[in-house]
Amino acid sequence: MILPSPTVAARLGRVRDQMRALGIDALVITHLPNLQYLTGFSGSAGAAVVLPRGCRLVVDFRYVTAATELVSGLDGLVTLATFERSYDEAIVDVLRLESRSRIGIEAAYLPVARFNAISAALAARATGPNAPALVPTERLVERSRMVKDPLEIETLREAGRRLGRIAAIAAEFVTYGRTEREVAADLENAMRGAGFSRPAFETIVASGPNSALPHARPTDRRIGDGDPTVLDFGGVYDGYCVDLTRTVQLGPVSASQARLYAAVREAQQAAIAAVRPGIPASAVDAAAREVLERHGLGEAFGHGTGHGLGLEVHEEPRIARPSPRVPDEVLERGMVFTIEPGAYVPGIGGVRFEDDVLVTADGCEILTR
Amino acid sequence: MILPSPTVAARLGRVRDQMRALGIDALVITHLPNLQYLTGFSGSAGAAVVLPRGCRLVVDFRYVTAATELVSGLDGLVTLATFERSYDEAIVDVLRLESRSRIGIEAAYLPVARFNAISAALAARATGPNAPALVPTERLVERSRMVKDPLEIETLREAGRRLGRIAAIAAEFVTYGRTEREVAADLENAMRGAGFSRPAFETIVASGPNSALPHARPTDRRIGDGDPTVLDFGGVYDGYCVDLTRTVQLGPVSASQARLYAAVREAQQAAIAAVRPGIPASAVDAAAREVLERHGLGEAFGHGTGHGLGLEVHEEPRIARPSPRVPDEVLERGMVFTIEPGAYVPGIGGVRFEDDVLVTADGCEILTR
Repeated sequence: MILPSPTVAARLGRVRDQMRALGIDALVITHLPNLQYLTGFSGSAGAAVVLPRGCRLVVDFRYVTAATELVSGLDGLVTLATFERSYDEAIVDVLRLESRSRIGIEAAYLPVARFNAISAALAARATGPNAPALVPTERLVERSRMVKDPLEIETLREAGRRLGRIAAIAAEFVTYGRTEREVAADLENAMRGAGFSRPAFETIVASGPNSALPHARPTDRRIGDGDPTVLDFGGVYDGYCVDLTRTVQLGPVSASQARLYAAVREAQQAAIAAVRPGIPASAVDAAAREVLERHGLGEAFGHGTGHGLGLEVHEEPRIARPSPRVPDEVLERGMVFTIEPGAYVPGIGGVRFEDDVLVTADGCEILTR
Repeated sequence: MILPSPTVAARLGRVRDQMRALGIDALVITHLPNLQYLTGFSGSAGAAVVLPRGCRLVVDFRYVTAATELVSGLDGLVTLATFERSYDEAIVDVLRLESRSRIGIEAAYLPVARFNAISAALAARATGPNAPALVPTERLVERSRMVKDPLEIETLREAGRRLGRIAAIAAEFVTYGRTEREVAADLENAMRGAGFSRPAFETIVASGPNSALPHARPTDRRIGDGDPTVLDFGGVYDGYCVDLTRTVQLGPVSASQARLYAAVREAQQAAIAAVRPGIPASAVDAAAREVLERHGLGEAFGHGTGHGLGLEVHEEPRIARPSPRVPDEVLERGMVFTIEPGAYVPGIGGVRFEDDVLVTADGCEILTR
């Protein structure tokens, strides 16, 4: 996607603020969604080096034409570097030209082998007394990506609208005797017809006993009477991911199933009502969890309440119980995430409802209705 | 997929041979296709630790049921470890229980952050004078995966047959005025209907001037008279990837286009005829390249001749020019790879033909016919 240069300037500016805070004078970007966020480049390989002034986009021969067009509108904010040999050597060339001393890398993504290769090449070429040091960093770009800018909000709003329209007709795909796989194909066709470039993840259609498995894959099982059927599908629209779940049922709904539907729906509404800027993400999870616990379904809800959406289908913030391993972000206006409580009871079935919300000044806007 | 235990025993045995050669007494597997190869486990997260005796499969709560079933048929070759906290802590627990001293990791995939976390946890818990050392390794499982066993060959043969049947009718999808995107959707629907669980990569439909870009994405361009149209599509069948390209054309074929088609077809046939055990992969590339150079199209063929197929759509061996960065494997019976020369000439168009072959005792079997 070709980004407007003020957008690129703002995004690079936020990353540079964090680089300054960490005393880093170059940041090597190798995680492709981060690369796309900062430069608009969306190839299947690529890298960038963010410098205090300027940003070098490194692409291979396949992408030279596309990348040249991309950077031509960016007023010199991003310039192109191509290469003959390998990405890592090209990165080292850029770094050496700039003779940086503390170089950040994306530790959550850069593999050990590439870290070692870049380190060794820098050390071999160092001319002064001290070789430049590679510094592991985490979440420098991801933190910035959590709060969507107006361009991203417009895209996600349009994507949510289109996905919501499919949700409105999705129940029609579920008829007696059709298989889970057939329904999954219908959902994916509908997404393609609605302008999504591809599914954002493997579509879930889980009926009857399968509905009680939160991560079931579609099978050749034929959907029949009294089967709760979880439809969890999402697509990539103009680079951005949206994600939605409905649970539908053919034939009679038993009293215990009806209680399950009502409880999960209530939990979802409570979580949506809880969203507002300034509260921790875990408070939204707690709102859903409290309702399900009150209905005796605490144990039946074995996953988090939601996850951020953007260039990746699972990104920050995580809407989950507080944990030492997952940062509990304070919600801010412009964050976009799913709200998807569920309850899975062997013998009765599984129910999940999922919508995507945008945090607004005083609550949230539901994007998938 | 549930693997027969003799298959698992043989695969683990080959990896242990390499571990012994490197003096490694535990190997941490985090690359998911390698995990699937060794254990059959195909979740979206997981890990394994291969030990001189035994192999521990580490999964999170979502996969406990599926993984329990998987290992139950494996005669104790693989045993299950679940956890409360994180994958890396669970890996450290397994390693500590086994008190290993030289622990291999998959350097091409393990991110720096996880390497550092595992190292630190091992050091913190070390009781003897020396903390165990993490040793970067590469291609320990990948090398074994290059040569397919009979189970894999049967799957790839069936997958190739099914993809070949779609290729036989693919030209019918390309009619006047249809868009590239519409044709891509037809190809993906046909693959789903043929039993593929998902596309193996983003389907390419590149018509007219787009055909000259080897990695074009489908656009809303309408296909018309005299447009060469490259159809490059592939699917995942029972976990295994196959990949095929045809170039079709509506309306009159110019003399220069006809020469392009004939040259690429000749190059593909020359490469297929060259395949046999005992020659370097680069010799197959050279066979295709020589033909195209003879036709003055050496510069127009800007990529390698092929790539291995298996649990990943791009794996070893690479069928390419010799290079210091890509190992030039000696072909062995049981290897499966694509043969896909192309020529891309701005103003005339692009042509590529791709089939998948299995190396046999004295040549190769074409899987996609």
